[in-house]
Amino acid sequence: MTQSRRSPCPIACTLDLIGDRWTLLVVRDMMFFEKQRFEEFLASPEGISSNILANRLKLLEELGLVTKQPYSSHSRRMNYQLTERGQSLRPVLKAMTAWGLRQLPDTTTPEK
Amino acid sequence: MTQSRRSPCPIACTLDLIGDRWTLLVVRDMMFFEKQRFEEFLASPEGISSNILANRLKLLEELGLVTKQPYSSHSRRMNYQLTERGQSLRPVLKAMTAWGLRQLPDTTTPEK
Repeated sequence: MTQSRRSPCPIACTLDLIGDRWTLLVVRDMMFFEKQRFEEFLASPEGISSNILANRLKLLEELGLVTKQPYSSHSRRMNYQLTERGQSLRPVLKAMTAWGLRQLPDTTTPEK
Repeated sequence: MTQSRRSPCPIACTLDLIGDRWTLLVVRDMMFFEKQRFEEFLASPEGISSNILANRLKLLEELGLVTKQPYSSHSRRMNYQLTERGQSLRPVLKAMTAWGLRQLPDTTTPEK
């Protein structure tokens, strides 16, 4: 990862890795909505495409933010889960949630 | 802005607006490094190009996060400053800074 860094700034380096419109939405789905399966991420309201989703899941795995495992011994389908490192993004997502709710009209979070 | 929203999720809406590799770096420069001028942003270590910078400053103005004013009465050059709304991104940038410093090796923030 280091070779693609633009600077040693922690904000810049974070954006190098996850600074795009989709990656954090997949993290959100795992963190706040307990989604684990490819089809569950696809079904989110933003309408991520399957190729972007596959790309982002691979990226998140490579970054050590997500692990995958088959969801049964006789299945090739995968469950995806946040690692502890992935869970550590919680304050970032919380800060973005709070900002959006306060600054952007008509944003809402679902009832839990 | 509303028409390009992917969902009412505050995280998704925030990413719709500023979810890219450059926008928050310009905000960072104003927020933490007191930069105000086009040339100062250009000089940041990430090496933003002048066309991307011009685009992001325009976007930030349109979003009400930044205002500009001529820096003297006989100059057409501009000073850019965060609005109160722009300043409200501070917790997001702080959370990203903390995450980067903790999770990404060899990231550093300059001495103040």
